[in-house]
Amino acid sequence: MAQNPVKPTAEIYVIESDEAERMRREMNLTAVSDLLPALVPTAQRMARPQISRYHVGAVALGSSGRIYLGVNVEFPGVPLHHSIHAEQFVVTNAALHGERSIQFIAVSDFPCGHCRQFLQEIRSASQIQIQVTGQGEYRPLSYFLPNPFGPSDLLKEDVPLLLESHCNYLIEEGEKEEEICKGLGEMEERLRAAALMAAREAHAPYSGCPSGFALADGKGRVYAGAYMESAAYNPSLGPVQAAIVAYMVAGGSRGGGGEGGVGEGLVAAVLAEKEHAAVSQETTARVLLAAVAPKARFSVYRVRSSTSPW
Amino acid sequence: MAQNPVKPTAEIYVIESDEAERMRREMNLTAVSDLLPALVPTAQRMARPQISRYHVGAVALGSSGRIYLGVNVEFPGVPLHHSIHAEQFVVTNAALHGERSIQFIAVSDFPCGHCRQFLQEIRSASQIQIQVTGQGEYRPLSYFLPNPFGPSDLLKEDVPLLLESHCNYLIEEGEKEEEICKGLGEMEERLRAAALMAAREAHAPYSGCPSGFALADGKGRVYAGAYMESAAYNPSLGPVQAAIVAYMVAGGSRGGGGEGGVGEGLVAAVLAEKEHAAVSQETTARVLLAAVAPKARFSVYRVRSSTSPW
Ligand SMILES: [Zn+2]
Ligand SMILES: [Zn+2]
Repeated sequence: MAQNPVKPTAEIYVIESDEAERMRREMNLTAVSDLLPALVPTAQRMARPQISRYHVGAVALGSSGRIYLGVNVEFPGVPLHHSIHAEQFVVTNAALHGERSIQFIAVSDFPCGHCRQFLQEIRSASQIQIQVTGQGEYRPLSYFLPNPFGPSDLLKEDVPLLLESHCNYLIEEGEKEEEICKGLGEMEERLRAAALMAAREAHAPYSGCPSGFALADGKGRVYAGAYMESAAYNPSLGPVQAAIVAYMVAGGSRGGGGEGGVGEGLVAAVLAEKEHAAVSQETTARVLLAAVAPKARFSVYRVRSSTSPW
Repeated sequence: MAQNPVKPTAEIYVIESDEAERMRREMNLTAVSDLLPALVPTAQRMARPQISRYHVGAVALGSSGRIYLGVNVEFPGVPLHHSIHAEQFVVTNAALHGERSIQFIAVSDFPCGHCRQFLQEIRSASQIQIQVTGQGEYRPLSYFLPNPFGPSDLLKEDVPLLLESHCNYLIEEGEKEEEICKGLGEMEERLRAAALMAAREAHAPYSGCPSGFALADGKGRVYAGAYMESAAYNPSLGPVQAAIVAYMVAGGSRGGGGEGGVGEGLVAAVLAEKEHAAVSQETTARVLLAAVAPKARFSVYRVRSSTSPW
């Protein structure tokens, strides 16, 4: 547990591979993976644990050589299942940057069972090396989660897993005439496009209900995230959470301070999902958005499955 | 994975200790714990996996000698984090019967990480013996969740854990005058009393926000459950879920069939929780209730902390 009220001058959530390599040489380390534990306190300082005040940091190395930082984020006023754990944040961060696999993760505390299960959703998950700072060497996820229940219990071998390329064939529903008449604002159109693009990349092989969420801040910038499902259902990360990670990683949430609210600058949001989805995010997205950014406008963009063009 | 459309004539969720002992002798088994795997298929048949169609059963032996059955329950139309896993169901079932500890659990699949973490909330959790049917012997939770993050990382030794006796000092808020004038119906009063009693037994040491939920069916019967928090936050079981377990265990949900809706007979519900709670269940309870029992009346009963009388 580390609590550091000092706000860093700039929050860095991604370190490019050449910069990571430069840091490794400067610190005289054998491998870039040895660098990750040293970055964990930096991640912890950026955490937003508004309920627990318990700062968790996670730092991951992708196969691209890039380093990703992740933090825990909590949302006062709503149930705890909305919380984003640092390990989920770091995976979402990697996904947002198109990273295709994660090989090493350093984290400030032993990962909870919920996170061990979430990580199981990555291809060859059992080989992901995890190190808890101050607790010795890297050990594989298979050590932390032996005899896992996971994707291979439910999916065929060729179904894409978390971080792998997804392309859900989703197109917009036919517009209602009234909407065409009144026209959509430029911002609403950009939000819809971003939410739809995120939904196409969502990992929802268990429910068949992909969704995406897009947020806009007062400066007209848009941040989007995709729903990520877990074979064990409950550890799934909602699309609103994924969009909040995108917002934080892009530096959109810097004003809030270490333990301040995360969504203060947000003004509008769009959820893209299917109508009558068996797993619908709509009502829950409304609840979480009202807690995070009570003044933000919210609308739902209905999409439907299309057949593959091939 | 077992799918059996045959509905048993009566759903049994609890087996008394003398009956368990009689079954052990009849089957020529050394210990009652050896009986649990044989009951797993019975539990699986009672599951309500309306999204996955994947039936999970869990059977637990308490220190009282009683046997508890648990099943997975899923809720179409809302996000997957609302799902109740069989292991969570069986612990909730034991809690509803005042069971103070669980020593053995047999389950139809390897427990997911979310459930391993939820079980960690029980005193001496690492010693709970778990067996997956068809996969050999009992092994302790410490095998399935090594190096856990758990209550001992956050709480003092003397704080009660899951299944232990709780008494949260909660009393009703001063009534609003209008409510006193119009008077409450008898059913509403019974629901409030049940929800308050459940909230007093809630396990919420991390947020300090206990809550309870009570449901009524068309025959005037009331079912209540208490919120149960996890040190890892997300695996916490909400009060609505706990009340649904109470409803199912009491046989209130028999009409639905193996894969039918769980809450069809429910007509009214009350949530008891503090005003302005950092972890408020209200909006989420409304979302889940609307999915499970759209016609049920819902109200919130505001309570506040009282100082201990001693
Ligand atoms: Zn975690
Ligand atoms: Zn589970």
